[in-house]
Amino acid sequence: MSEFDLIERYFRPLTQSRADVPLGIGDDAALLLPEPGRQLAFSMDTLVAGVHFLPQAAADDIGYKSLAVNLSDMAAMGAEPAWASLSLSMPQQDDAWLAGFAEGFRELAQAWQVQLVGGDTTRGPLSITVHICGYANPGVALLRSGAQPGDRIYVTGNLGDAGLGLARVLEKIDVSVPYCVQRLQRPEPRVAAGLKLAGLARCAIDISDGLLADLGHICESSQCGADIYLQQIPLSAELQNYYQSQPDWNLVLSAGDDYELCFTLTPEKEAEILAVLKQLGTPVQCIGEITTQPGIRCHHPDGSLFAPDGKGYEHF
Amino acid sequence: MSEFDLIERYFRPLTQSRADVPLGIGDDAALLLPEPGRQLAFSMDTLVAGVHFLPQAAADDIGYKSLAVNLSDMAAMGAEPAWASLSLSMPQQDDAWLAGFAEGFRELAQAWQVQLVGGDTTRGPLSITVHICGYANPGVALLRSGAQPGDRIYVTGNLGDAGLGLARVLEKIDVSVPYCVQRLQRPEPRVAAGLKLAGLARCAIDISDGLLADLGHICESSQCGADIYLQQIPLSAELQNYYQSQPDWNLVLSAGDDYELCFTLTPEKEAEILAVLKQLGTPVQCIGEITTQPGIRCHHPDGSLFAPDGKGYEHF
Repeated sequence: MSEFDLIERYFRPLTQSRADVPLGIGDDAALLLPEPGRQLAFSMDTLVAGVHFLPQAAADDIGYKSLAVNLSDMAAMGAEPAWASLSLSMPQQDDAWLAGFAEGFRELAQAWQVQLVGGDTTRGPLSITVHICGYANPGVALLRSGAQPGDRIYVTGNLGDAGLGLARVLEKIDVSVPYCVQRLQRPEPRVAAGLKLAGLARCAIDISDGLLADLGHICESSQCGADIYLQQIPLSAELQNYYQSQPDWNLVLSAGDDYELCFTLTPEKEAEILAVLKQLGTPVQCIGEITTQPGIRCHHPDGSLFAPDGKGYEHF
Repeated sequence: MSEFDLIERYFRPLTQSRADVPLGIGDDAALLLPEPGRQLAFSMDTLVAGVHFLPQAAADDIGYKSLAVNLSDMAAMGAEPAWASLSLSMPQQDDAWLAGFAEGFRELAQAWQVQLVGGDTTRGPLSITVHICGYANPGVALLRSGAQPGDRIYVTGNLGDAGLGLARVLEKIDVSVPYCVQRLQRPEPRVAAGLKLAGLARCAIDISDGLLADLGHICESSQCGADIYLQQIPLSAELQNYYQSQPDWNLVLSAGDDYELCFTLTPEKEAEILAVLKQLGTPVQCIGEITTQPGIRCHHPDGSLFAPDGKGYEHF
């Protein structure tokens, strides 16, 4: 089957028709007509078999996640996702796999009215690259550089689930943790929360490489530091139950793939922001404060400091 | 070295500052401010080691070509390239390789004022995905669907060089063909010609999969066919010299990677278009006509038909 037949069969059906797409898949390039007066947000992420997912992972989960991690970047900017491009490398054509992949991708694309506008299919080791483009309103996008000393640090959802789910998938733990595995395989991008936070929060990042690494990026970009209170970090019932008395803080602080948002806000905006997020149904938790002192300090309830093993996922 | 150090060291220096990029590399997404009233053209292509280039190919050639193939898609739409995103998967960090890759990429990015605005670096089998975004003026982009019976079919440059260069690189031929190898490794995207053709030519495509395959896409999209006259197909001196009396027409018609443009024009516009391209210094040649009869027929000078082995590069 040629590349063109592949696209025709599996990917054209999942393209939705947006008014700002004069020409979609099928030519040398797609043509887009951006809404006037808005900025565009571009992001691109790659998932490689054996690195970002197990080669035997379900095709629909891979399709879902390849879009989810990119939507999470839109969430972290407070941007509204619009157009996706997909490049798929596969060792050989596998129709069942492709159908599953397309279905997982479509599920999330449809939920956020994202149109697939182009891409590439090639022979090669299994790898997926997605480019996402969204709309941002000028002046309100959530940058990493906006944090200021005295800001409160918040996270959405729970941390550590995907890390524990990965331990299970890799058979490093014996206990079944289906919720955590689900969180690993089907992360929920916090797009709605990001859109609400735009213009209200001071800064945001999505937690893809672990809280310490990603909060570290905020601190570097904003030239500040942070105090984190371990007992305030939100943990799922399944994770708490697995660890019983004492969670593995290294996992909670350094495992990636949760795709929750970490954001900071000035105390004066706290009530307003919390009300908006409550209305949205997005769980959030204050976990610490931005400081002038550089570095991130993780405090135990007794006031002692926790010394983490690492800072997060290192790509090389 | 972390992903962030890698980006900082090798890729930030090659980003040029464009006025339409409010926020470049370094956050969850780049922010772009498109020029009002213009359309955007999106395209994305992947090059995989061992499939699209030899693993031992020079890093700077790979960097150059990964952008060149995407610029060629802009050329085929008559679009003006603006922003690129780059995803790079590598088995391990190799500083000399990265420096070479970045240099080859930069060379072409600088020539076309393309700013690198984002991307991803991951561990994995060597593979490069580039997303390119350019500007198209509404109503003048070059679509595959615009050809009409009676149109003359033109190509830029020469065909078959990259195919012969590949045969040499794969050691399938004994004779040195340095010009053809150069054409394989450093294809010149016909961006300037594409910009001139926008609004004048009826349709265009870039020849990445071979003339028959790519002209075939025009014919399918435009619901027409084509007559091609073999003796009119432009061939380089090196290729003619290699083949002496009779070129390998299968190679000339079906080998990909030349990245020349194939376009059609109505005879009334011929003089105007040829004058514009002559001024630009872009060599072009009429190779046949669009017909109502479907299919592509390749005519020998004696009137007999050539029957090609295949239609072009099949991805699977």
